[in-house]
Amino acid sequence: MTTDSWINETLYPDWGQRFLVKRELARVQSDFQDIVIFESFSHGRVMLLDGVVQITEADEFVYQEMLTHVPLLAHGECRNVLIIGAGDGGVLRRVLQHRGVQRAVMVEIDGEVIRLAKAHLPSIAGDAWTDPRAVVIVGDGIDYVKRAADASFDAIIVDSTDPIGVGEVLFTDDFYANCARILSPGGLIVNQCGVPAMQADELRETSVRRARFFPHVGAYVAAVPTYVGGFMTLGFAAKQPGLDRVSAETIRVRAEAAGILGSTQYWTPEIHAGAFHLPPYIAKHLPK
Amino acid sequence: MTTDSWINETLYPDWGQRFLVKRELARVQSDFQDIVIFESFSHGRVMLLDGVVQITEADEFVYQEMLTHVPLLAHGECRNVLIIGAGDGGVLRRVLQHRGVQRAVMVEIDGEVIRLAKAHLPSIAGDAWTDPRAVVIVGDGIDYVKRAADASFDAIIVDSTDPIGVGEVLFTDDFYANCARILSPGGLIVNQCGVPAMQADELRETSVRRARFFPHVGAYVAAVPTYVGGFMTLGFAAKQPGLDRVSAETIRVRAEAAGILGSTQYWTPEIHAGAFHLPPYIAKHLPK
Repeated sequence: MTTDSWINETLYPDWGQRFLVKRELARVQSDFQDIVIFESFSHGRVMLLDGVVQITEADEFVYQEMLTHVPLLAHGECRNVLIIGAGDGGVLRRVLQHRGVQRAVMVEIDGEVIRLAKAHLPSIAGDAWTDPRAVVIVGDGIDYVKRAADASFDAIIVDSTDPIGVGEVLFTDDFYANCARILSPGGLIVNQCGVPAMQADELRETSVRRARFFPHVGAYVAAVPTYVGGFMTLGFAAKQPGLDRVSAETIRVRAEAAGILGSTQYWTPEIHAGAFHLPPYIAKHLPK
Repeated sequence: MTTDSWINETLYPDWGQRFLVKRELARVQSDFQDIVIFESFSHGRVMLLDGVVQITEADEFVYQEMLTHVPLLAHGECRNVLIIGAGDGGVLRRVLQHRGVQRAVMVEIDGEVIRLAKAHLPSIAGDAWTDPRAVVIVGDGIDYVKRAADASFDAIIVDSTDPIGVGEVLFTDDFYANCARILSPGGLIVNQCGVPAMQADELRETSVRRARFFPHVGAYVAAVPTYVGGFMTLGFAAKQPGLDRVSAETIRVRAEAAGILGSTQYWTPEIHAGAFHLPPYIAKHLPK
């Protein structure tokens, strides 16, 4: 057990963030990755996978709200939602907040992430794990989308790590082709595309790949405090046009009906609509 | 001279960013602060004041564009602009981009910052230093606003450090009272208010203070990669209402006329308008 020492994030070789550690809570080598959970002085509890910050109690709301509420409300009538990754349960909790959602399937490859999140980060998922609409599968997301029925989901949320290590296969042609197949005609997929100021290749390359299987590809931004480096981008791909241009007024009406309005700390209808307006330094990495 | 070692930012005692240093370029103890400039592997050249990142070549455009273009275009007819601080010259350069600006007075207390920025960060200011409309004063901003004539400026841009050390007096009642006095009837002031996820007190306390001297007080956000911690806020105070609600369409027309459109990497008319829509976790710190 480490006490009062620093942990350096190792995402980039030449820049990064560091946390003063109050107490280490878990350090586990799973079949897939190195998992560390510690109590910080600055951000509550923090989970690292292979040395990269995945979630902190202090700011998890930014990423989770934007990764969940934006696609669900942009679509407007999501009943069946597929979540890939997100083993901490935070996305699942936000998906289940939406009154209209009938089924949320979550496929996380690493059961140890779920087990450790339940033990040490229980507030992230709240009571989502026992919601009757939740189907939690410990398994391979690639395999799941390969075997799922055509048009069986309205939205797919990919909460992967960066396209290195265990998350890499979630950025392949094969994966996106199956996602397109299992989405309903009005369906859409979102996935995290990194922080363009540091990882512009990630947005550029995965956007080109999504464009092979979806006619409407874009991205929106969120300023996540501990995904350091300015805006992170969330990649967006849809079968129908216009889901990225729904007005704040319409989003507000949908959020009210869904039971989301007033429950958020980062997301608002105006921030939703504004997040699709990309700074030029980010927009230039998207396919024309 | 340090080679290939890490520099840790010391802004927070328990969290922060670190840079791998390629080469240290300057380390000077001025009459006011400790100034360090180094070449990083990740962000080009970086300037620290008292251990806190002030500017990097890689991302300076975010902060400078948002600190400058937003107030000038929200106002729409700025002729006389006062800049306090900003010794690197980056704000001065952006102010002078605006065709309608007739005079930009910059008051920086620390001549060493200007000297070192000219020597080691010449791209930040470009040729702003020799623009005939620029008046660069090495002196005390508090003293300058005390002695300036009533209604002599349309906009005041305060590019201070945080309200600790040399920058502390730029957040006082006395300073804001004089700013209000020397601004024209349609005038406004902006100043950086830190990163609310880490420094919420800074936004809250300085907003209350601004509200004593200006009837219309608010804030807008920018995601600056190396001011780590999610959105930073830029405080905004105006004598007239509505400057924070100018439509993107109107801003676009003004930016076109000013010669700004197409010159930016972060700022756009849509980002300008959207930046005033604050996430609830930030909005709650503003006066009602």
